[in-house]
Amino acid sequence: MKKIIFSLIAISTAVISFSAAAQFAKPEDAVKYRKSAFTVMATHFGRMGAMAQGKVPFDAKSAADNAEIVVNMAKLPWAAFGEGTDVGDTKAKPEVWKQSAKFKEAAEKLQAESVKLVAAAKTGKEDAFKTAFAATAGACKSCHDDFKAK
Amino acid sequence: MKKIIFSLIAISTAVISFSAAAQFAKPEDAVKYRKSAFTVMATHFGRMGAMAQGKVPFDAKSAADNAEIVVNMAKLPWAAFGEGTDVGDTKAKPEVWKQSAKFKEAAEKLQAESVKLVAAAKTGKEDAFKTAFAATAGACKSCHDDFKAK
Repeated sequence: MKKIIFSLIAISTAVISFSAAAQFAKPEDAVKYRKSAFTVMATHFGRMGAMAQGKVPFDAKSAADNAEIVVNMAKLPWAAFGEGTDVGDTKAKPEVWKQSAKFKEAAEKLQAESVKLVAAAKTGKEDAFKTAFAATAGACKSCHDDFKAK
Repeated sequence: MKKIIFSLIAISTAVISFSAAAQFAKPEDAVKYRKSAFTVMATHFGRMGAMAQGKVPFDAKSAADNAEIVVNMAKLPWAAFGEGTDVGDTKAKPEVWKQSAKFKEAAEKLQAESVKLVAAAKTGKEDAFKTAFAATAGACKSCHDDFKAK
């Protein structure tokens, strides 16, 4: 019986690895992809940050456009943290794989906050935007603290 | 009179440079951003390519999901080809800046074809998907031939 269970575990692990491999030809490709998604996300997040900090005047249309890009980008990187992608030039901490449920939760938090940020930007109310921006920035920071090396 | 015109040209050039600078702190940031956007786009385009070439079975939902990401990504890199961003580790040919109207047209062609690709994938008809995929791939290739160094 134990043997069968072990075999089943081995098979399902192989299936998971295969599906991760099917997404990216090499683990390094997954690293490059997720870093690219974060670069694009951070660029647009930074543009909102300039508004939130008063360095650039608040513009509801521009804020909402940037927030929508963040929503789209925030869906992408997580699938590229599959098993075996803790390689090469990555700042991902081992906790990404050791605490995968917590990591998933942090990713979902960012997604939820960025959706609220779009709505807040669209109200045209600077205060609402700033509050939602701070909440989204908090989701970034909290995940970086736990899962990203300095 | 000539002096005034030259001054106006100088001012408007300054304004254009300023707005490009406002988008990215450094020209190198623009290069990194646009390469990142292309990396994400190419990853999802490649997944459809595997289906178009029959390496992976056609799956309408997966094809449409990937095509929608391509549509989103295809909006982004162009704003990062501002004046003064022909720097660092870039494969952009000088033609990007010398033939900017043609470059813009090529970017718009990709955007239009990728929108059609989403619609084709959503029909669930493999032939329609393959035809639209080939047209989108053609838009990639034609732009690379003219504007990207090998």
